[in-house]
Amino acid sequence: MTGTGRFIALEGGEGAGKSTQCRLLAEALAARGIDAVVTREPGGTTGAETIRRLLLSTEGEGWGPRAEALLFAAARSDHVERLIRPALAAGRWVICDRFVDSSRAYQGGGGALDDQDILALHRIGSGGLLPDATLLITVSPALVTERLAARDGDVADRIGGRPAEYHAAVAARFAAMADADPARFIRIDGNGTPGETHALIMQALGLNP
Amino acid sequence: MTGTGRFIALEGGEGAGKSTQCRLLAEALAARGIDAVVTREPGGTTGAETIRRLLLSTEGEGWGPRAEALLFAAARSDHVERLIRPALAAGRWVICDRFVDSSRAYQGGGGALDDQDILALHRIGSGGLLPDATLLITVSPALVTERLAARDGDVADRIGGRPAEYHAAVAARFAAMADADPARFIRIDGNGTPGETHALIMQALGLNP
Repeated sequence: MTGTGRFIALEGGEGAGKSTQCRLLAEALAARGIDAVVTREPGGTTGAETIRRLLLSTEGEGWGPRAEALLFAAARSDHVERLIRPALAAGRWVICDRFVDSSRAYQGGGGALDDQDILALHRIGSGGLLPDATLLITVSPALVTERLAARDGDVADRIGGRPAEYHAAVAARFAAMADADPARFIRIDGNGTPGETHALIMQALGLNP
Repeated sequence: MTGTGRFIALEGGEGAGKSTQCRLLAEALAARGIDAVVTREPGGTTGAETIRRLLLSTEGEGWGPRAEALLFAAARSDHVERLIRPALAAGRWVICDRFVDSSRAYQGGGGALDDQDILALHRIGSGGLLPDATLLITVSPALVTERLAARDGDVADRIGGRPAEYHAAVAARFAAMADADPARFIRIDGNGTPGETHALIMQALGLNP
């Protein structure tokens, strides 16, 4: 175990550009000789991707908020145990497209589960592991709408397809979490081009030349 | 909501005869004009049966104990919300082949999760619902071995196929739970014929003529 790996999560609503920024960050790290694994939630391991399909499928009657939160925590447990912790122990960086704060923003606060419940699930499932830094990418609602319209239905899974009020509440919860934990959260303005946002992320991580 | 339904869980190790006794109990209730739904865990609803397949499949690398406990809790949440609570609210009896005490006996106490964690998952997922009566069917280890050998591999799923020491520890945890909560647990001697065990269950539930 070298212990030099850093665990970076990218968070934000649909259309924030998280996946693109994960890829650009990994490429920039590779160019600096830093070995990084890019992964995502829900998913990242064989077992967790199986659970992802259960969660995002639009077939059947769907899941209640409590079952949904437990399934996310189960997927995260597998992901943390089998991919994230081993990678960090081997000195690799881990760049994760969504992590526990997405559960807090999407499943918590919506009425059925409070934030303490989500954090209890995370403690039981994953030992409460938190990223070294969580990059919260924020984008104006108008730009999100524009980006999602351009996605050609890629967003029409069970969660992405929920109404605008739901996504506004999610954004508000992300903002509140960032306010409450400024040591871990870094807000990134995602309204610019992918290259501009990438530059902000590199700067935030202290990786600029 | 009539509120006259009773929630009865049957618990015990592999080969205790739980499934047979669930069926015999439901038949006896039907003969008395009592409407009962027989169900099982993990499973009982479409969503929970999907999770059951993930849990018991012998493909892949399996689940760690924490992911496993979360998946059981997710399946139970769906089952409680969509089948058990509505049935009880409609005045039906619910006879359930395994419930949360199986999670406590199988996933808890094994080292990775303690009993309080399992109960926390149950509170978050299912509001902590407990049966009105939990029938713990106990069978001698020698008889269990004999019954399982006669099952023709039906037990060779990922959990039933674990070694004898695992199942002995499970039995010890069931016994300890029954000792700790005598108001809810009723021990049933399952060493006799199915008819003999059924008679003991009817007597225990105050249903004999």
